[in-house]
Amino acid sequence: MPFNALSELAVFLRGFAAERGWEQFHSPKNLAMALNVEAAELSEHFQWLTEQQSLKLDEKQREAVALEMADVLIYLVRMADRLGIDLMDAARRKVVLNTEKYPAERRP
Amino acid sequence: MPFNALSELAVFLRGFAAERGWEQFHSPKNLAMALNVEAAELSEHFQWLTEQQSLKLDEKQREAVALEMADVLIYLVRMADRLGIDLMDAARRKVVLNTEKYPAERRP
Amino acid sequence: MPFNALSELAVFLRGFAAERGWEQFHSPKNLAMALNVEAAELSEHFQWLTEQQSLKLDEKQREAVALEMADVLIYLVRMADRLGIDLMDAARRKVVLNTEKYPAERRP
Amino acid sequence: MPFNALSELAVFLRGFAAERGWEQFHSPKNLAMALNVEAAELSEHFQWLTEQQSLKLDEKQREAVALEMADVLIYLVRMADRLGIDLMDAARRKVVLNTEKYPAERRP
Repeated sequence: MPFNALSELAVFLRGFAAERGWEQFHSPKNLAMALNVEAAELSEHFQWLTEQQSLKLDEKQREAVALEMADVLIYLVRMADRLGIDLMDAARRKVVLNTEKYPAERRP
Repeated sequence: MPFNALSELAVFLRGFAAERGWEQFHSPKNLAMALNVEAAELSEHFQWLTEQQSLKLDEKQREAVALEMADVLIYLVRMADRLGIDLMDAARRKVVLNTEKYPAERRP
Repeated sequence: MPFNALSELAVFLRGFAAERGWEQFHSPKNLAMALNVEAAELSEHFQWLTEQQSLKLDEKQREAVALEMADVLIYLVRMADRLGIDLMDAARRKVVLNTEKYPAERRP
Repeated sequence: MPFNALSELAVFLRGFAAERGWEQFHSPKNLAMALNVEAAELSEHFQWLTEQQSLKLDEKQREAVALEMADVLIYLVRMADRLGIDLMDAARRKVVLNTEKYPAERRP
């Protein structure tokens, strides 16, 4: 099951939760907590590394980090689905705001 | 600038950081911290709500939440880009592992 | 109101919440979320600093950091009070476990 | 080793880190990350519980939660020590600010 878009991942996760009777646990409040926990598990891999070391993970570390990042993405997509939020469009709106807030010194 | 895929967002963010001279700050370690901060800002919207209330946000709350979710996605995509990780493929691998770990009681 | 012990701070916070009708919001679950948010606000001060810079805060930064650390302590003490947990004794128990888990190479 | 005050815990933790050669890892930046991770591990115990359930932990859960809270306290005290911050006095200053910011409707 390769996912070509976040919307496909959202549909998969909806089914995954439904099959396991997990919808009752998946309030946006609870999903926000779970997302925080996964973000912390991700940063745990980096807490005692220097910034330089964090750029040079070995293959085993890199795969562990990739799976933690996947957990963050999974809860983010699941939460957006529960709230009816289009994540890619929210990213577009946020990027517009950031471009206004932080003008580039010089544009290439 | 609509983004059709996470890879397009990654390319945009790479340019955004480069134009502002931010690459020096964007070590995976620092990006992991920033991702955590954004995840916490997201959950701040929900901390005093009941689970029921978290399902019924008004339009203003929903847009604020959508923009915080966008911040999480932006740092996640930026971090994956710095580490050379394919997020969508990592999600696929993680979903395979989750399906093995949590077998559905009955499949529909 | 100087606090001589965590137990005095706990009593103060209990009264503070009661006077404002906040007990209804102070479930351990919600306090855990609030504690996470404060921990993230604390780390936000450090996210773009190098480790060296984080050791040399100026007076203004140091006071801002001190007040964020106070917020973490306040929610931690409030949560312990709601759960009937003695924090200082829990720290003692944890320190015993850590000493077993991480034996010192050589003791001075 | 019972701890009668946070300052005693700070002195113990300073020796504990020194004996293990951990000072090099204990920059305020790294300790802030570690504090966040522990705060998230604490909230992980509550993420799928209702608020009501979070008030009624059984003995095993309560001890696990107590030890996670101890971890948060330990990193908080260690970080304050590295920054030369007096946590109890910072809590006093923060409580003064909170009392101004949130006046009680009626004082008993």
